[in-house]
Order: sequence, then C-alpha cells, then structure tokens
Amino acid sequence: MYMKLLEERIRRDGVVEDGQVLKVDRFLNHQMDVGLFEEMGKEWARLFGAENVTKILTIEASGIGIACVTAEQFNCPVIFAKKSRTRNIAGEVYSTQVKSFTHGNVSTVIVSKQFLRPEDKVLLIDDFLANGAALEGLIDLVEQSGATLVGAGIAVEKAFQPGGERIRAKGVRVESLARVKRMEPGQIEFC
Amino acid sequence: MYMKLLEERIRRDGVVEDGQVLKVDRFLNHQMDVGLFEEMGKEWARLFGAENVTKILTIEASGIGIACVTAEQFNCPVIFAKKSRTRNIAGEVYSTQVKSFTHGNVSTVIVSKQFLRPEDKVLLIDDFLANGAALEGLIDLVEQSGATLVGAGIAVEKAFQPGGERIRAKGVRVESLARVKRMEPGQIEFC
Repeated sequence: MYMKLLEERIRRDGVVEDGQVLKVDRFLNHQMDVGLFEEMGKEWARLFGAENVTKILTIEASGIGIACVTAEQFNCPVIFAKKSRTRNIAGEVYSTQVKSFTHGNVSTVIVSKQFLRPEDKVLLIDDFLANGAALEGLIDLVEQSGATLVGAGIAVEKAFQPGGERIRAKGVRVESLARVKRMEPGQIEFC
Repeated sequence: MYMKLLEERIRRDGVVEDGQVLKVDRFLNHQMDVGLFEEMGKEWARLFGAENVTKILTIEASGIGIACVTAEQFNCPVIFAKKSRTRNIAGEVYSTQVKSFTHGNVSTVIVSKQFLRPEDKVLLIDDFLANGAALEGLIDLVEQSGATLVGAGIAVEKAFQPGGERIRAKGVRVESLARVKRMEPGQIEFC
C-alpha cells in the first residue's frame, strides 16, 4: 500500500543526508502536520478497519502524535511504550530492549501490564521502519501480554534497510504508507 | 476555567500516592483516551480560538498526544521540544534547561529555529503543571524565538504546588482544565 499524499510531502519537505538519514522533521517528527496525520489515520482505518482494533500501541516520542490522531479513527485508546522506568509508572510492567541506531544506545522499553490484556487486538503505529528494532520491541511486548497482534501501520519505511522484510517474514502484516526504495541528496525513489 | 468531564475522570481513574503524586496513566500519560483529548481540545479552542494561534508547542513525551489532538481544532502544526540533541535534528536550535522532579534530573530541551519564528503566535500545551519547570522551559524557548506567547493550556494543575502561581504572576495566561486543590489517597478536591 502507498499513499500519494505522504510521498509527495516527503519529496517536497524531506531532506536526505549521508545517503542513510532521511529527515522529515518539518512535518512528521519534530514539527508535526496533524492534517497529514488525519489522512494517514484514515488510510490505516481503511486497511485495518475490519480487525476490531481495541488498542493502538506506539513508542515514545515521535510515534505518539501519529498514533493519537489515528486512534480517533479507530475509537480506541493509545498506549505508548516508555523508554525507561519512571517513578510515576506502575510496578507491574512488560519490558523489552530496543536498540536505537539514531542515538546509538539500547533502551529498556516498558508497558504497564494493566493496559495490554490477552483479549486485546493491538495495532502498532510508528513513524519510521528501518532496522526494525523499535517495531520488534513493540511486537515482543504484545506477545508477552498474550494479546492479538493485528499488524503495524508505519508512516515511512526505508525499504532498503532490513527491518520490514524481516518482520513481514515473521507473518506480521506491515502497512507502510510510503516505502523508500533508494535515496540520495536531492532525490528520493519510492517502491 | 475548569472542565467537569476531566475532573470526573480524575476522580474515577486517578490514583493518589504519597500525597504528592497523582497518577493519571490510565487515560492521560501512558494509556491515552483520545476521545477525552478531543473534548479538551475543544475547550482550549473555546478559550484561545480568537488568538490566531499559528503553532502549538509541547514537550516530549506525554504532552505530544494531547497537543496533536488539540491542534486539529486550531488547524495548526505542533512542535515538540526534544529532550536532548539527536543526530537527526538540525544544527540550529533554541535550547533551555528543564529540571524534572519526577525523574530527578536536568535535561537540555531543544527546538529547531526554523519552526519558531518571530511572526508565530504560540500556544503551549502540556499534561501537567506542578512545579512549573517544563512550562517555564517552553516559555523560555518562545521568548528566545521572538514569537508571541498566546498562553498555556494545561490538563491537570496541582494548584497546591507553586508553578501555576509563579507563571501567572509573569503575566502568562494559563488555562488549566482541572485544578487540584488538595489530595490524599482516595480523595481529590478541586479548586
């Protein structure tokens, strides 16, 4: 699946650096165009609307806005996985490790057990899929809870990196709205 | 200003711990009730709708969802201040220091200069106001940019802590939708 509106926006406002980094901070993950998020949410609602999603799960920070606007289409709550234990979180949590290629570190990511139940049908939402570490962390949290994983809605997939292929090979339905096949400064080609 | 719906939700689903900590992670800052966020957004639109807001500014992570759903009412983008410099952010940033009483540390918080301009009219949105450190950090970022500060929309203010009073004394319009006057386990009293 692809979404022309998002591809056009990436062409117009995305910035390619060093061949591997695609900066979309003008509209996706620093400044956020919520009108665009509404259209993305409608597209995922079209794709996953028959799945009776009960919870949307994302990971802080840049997935949260997209997930919340999308959840308005699904009439369900959002849970965001938190990147470390804080004093304000319940003691009973599911946890997993996520390696960040952007920041070059490993984080412990947690979700309170009270919010992910075996009867839940969970849709994952995130802004980026590249190496797949964050998405695999979210999948692990869902599996620990015994909930049903409906699939993953991704805004931008860097299809030349291995995450998407590896996760689809596990049988997870991944719907990326824009899939970058290759890119270099000034030029972006989609699948 | 107050909002009955939010007060009732805090009474029903909020948990008071140790007299100072109000946990609202069932609906506000871990699991997020986006239907409630829509009502909060409408209330802030009623309060600030005449101010021609051009940008909503929040701080990661738990303010992002509320800010994005609120921005749908204002038809404007959201910017979230990031808690540290990452490789994916532009070099030219405004930065400030924010002390977290929850985490017991000090973070550097940044916003790319390209997203806050002198001609912008900025509404701040955050989930909590207690000691006021996060909100004062956001105010500092707006002042550095030369943009006009329209005011701040806060979901839950702990009115028995000093942040709200100090920030209002500076002349900033702060609209908290629920103001907690005092609380103890099992009992919450609003202003």
